[in-house]
Amino acid sequence: MELSSKLLQQAVDQLATLPGIGKKTAMRLTLNLLKRSQEDVNAFGNAFIRLREEIVFCKLCHNISDAESCDICTNTSRDQTTICVVEEIKDVIALENTQQYNGLYHVLGGKISPMDGIGPSDLTIDDLLTRVNSGNVKEVILALSTTMEGDTTNFYLFRKLSPTAINVSQLARGMGVGDELEYTDEVTLGRSLLHRMPYEHILKR
Amino acid sequence: MELSSKLLQQAVDQLATLPGIGKKTAMRLTLNLLKRSQEDVNAFGNAFIRLREEIVFCKLCHNISDAESCDICTNTSRDQTTICVVEEIKDVIALENTQQYNGLYHVLGGKISPMDGIGPSDLTIDDLLTRVNSGNVKEVILALSTTMEGDTTNFYLFRKLSPTAINVSQLARGMGVGDELEYTDEVTLGRSLLHRMPYEHILKR
Repeated sequence: MELSSKLLQQAVDQLATLPGIGKKTAMRLTLNLLKRSQEDVNAFGNAFIRLREEIVFCKLCHNISDAESCDICTNTSRDQTTICVVEEIKDVIALENTQQYNGLYHVLGGKISPMDGIGPSDLTIDDLLTRVNSGNVKEVILALSTTMEGDTTNFYLFRKLSPTAINVSQLARGMGVGDELEYTDEVTLGRSLLHRMPYEHILKR
Repeated sequence: MELSSKLLQQAVDQLATLPGIGKKTAMRLTLNLLKRSQEDVNAFGNAFIRLREEIVFCKLCHNISDAESCDICTNTSRDQTTICVVEEIKDVIALENTQQYNGLYHVLGGKISPMDGIGPSDLTIDDLLTRVNSGNVKEVILALSTTMEGDTTNFYLFRKLSPTAINVSQLARGMGVGDELEYTDEVTLGRSLLHRMPYEHILKR
C-alpha cells in the first residue's frame, strides 16, 4: 500500500507492527486518530512513551509496577503465605480477574524451553527460591501453560522446591466451564476423569 | 479490569479508544510494546503526534498531504482532465490500490446527510465547482457510497455540474467479482441486469 503522505505512512507502519494489526486496520485506526484534537493525540502517543520510560518491575515478584514494590506485594490484606507462579505479567491480570485468589504472585518471565534456548537461569527462578526460603511461605501454586514447556518448568520447579517443607500445587486441569463432553479433546477428558472430585467437596464450595 | 500499574492502565485505556480494540486486545498490544526498546516505543508514540502536528490537507483536492499540494495533484504524468469525487481520504487509498485510475481526486469530507445535520455547505463542494470551472476538466467521476446519502449527494453534484459541458459519470453498480448469483441481493442483481454490458465491450478490455 503506497500512501501519498510519508507521515501517514510512518504512523500506519508503526501501528502495523503490533500483533494482529494488518495494514488495512492500521490505516483505519490512524485515520480515526487524525480526526482527534492535537491534545488527544499527544495523550495517546505519550501514554506509551511514558509507560516505557517510567515502568519498573517489582523487585519481589517481577510484576509490572509504578514503584519499587508492586501494589499486590505491599498489600498487607493479602495472604503472604501463598505464592502463585506464572509465566508473564498478563497471567497475573488474568488470575486477578477471577477474584478467586488473595495471595502473592511470582512472574517467571517465560518458561523453560530448550528449543528457544531458554534455560532455568534465564528465568527468575533463583529469586523465587530466595523468596520461598527466606519467609513464611506455606504453598506455591504452579500456574503455567499446560504445554510441554509449561510441564517441564512445573517439574523443574517441583524438584527445586521438594527439599523444603512447602506444599506445591498445580492448577486443576479438566473440562472448561460450559464445555460439552462431545467436543472436549480426549486428553483433557481423560485428565478430567483421572482427577475427578468427590461431589461433597464441590457442594462445600 | 483493574491493573496494578496506573501507567499501564493509561496506555491500555488509550489503545482501547481506537475502534474495534477492546480492553483485552489493548492489554495484549501494550504488553507487546513494553517488550521493545525505549527508542522503538518513542518512534511508535511520536509517529502519531508528528502526524497530527505536521499533516496538512492538499489545498486543491483536500487529500492528506505532507505539503501544500499533494503528490497526486502535482504529478504531471496523471490525467489532469478527470476528477474522481470521493467522501474520505481512505477512499482515495482504496481507489489508488486498484491501479486502474490515473486522474485526480476531490475529497468531499463526507456526504450530504440531513439526519446528521450535514448539508452541502459542510462539504468541499464549492471548491470542487471552482476546480471544475477554472480548468480543463472533462470528466467528473462520482465515487460515493451506494447508500441513500451517497445517492443524494450524487444527485446534488450532478445538478450542480449539469450546466457545465463536463461529463459526469458514476461508478458501476452490479455484482462483485467472485459473487454468486444465488447470494446476491435482489436490488444489486436487478441493477446488474439493468446496466448489463454488450459482451464485445468486455472483450475489448
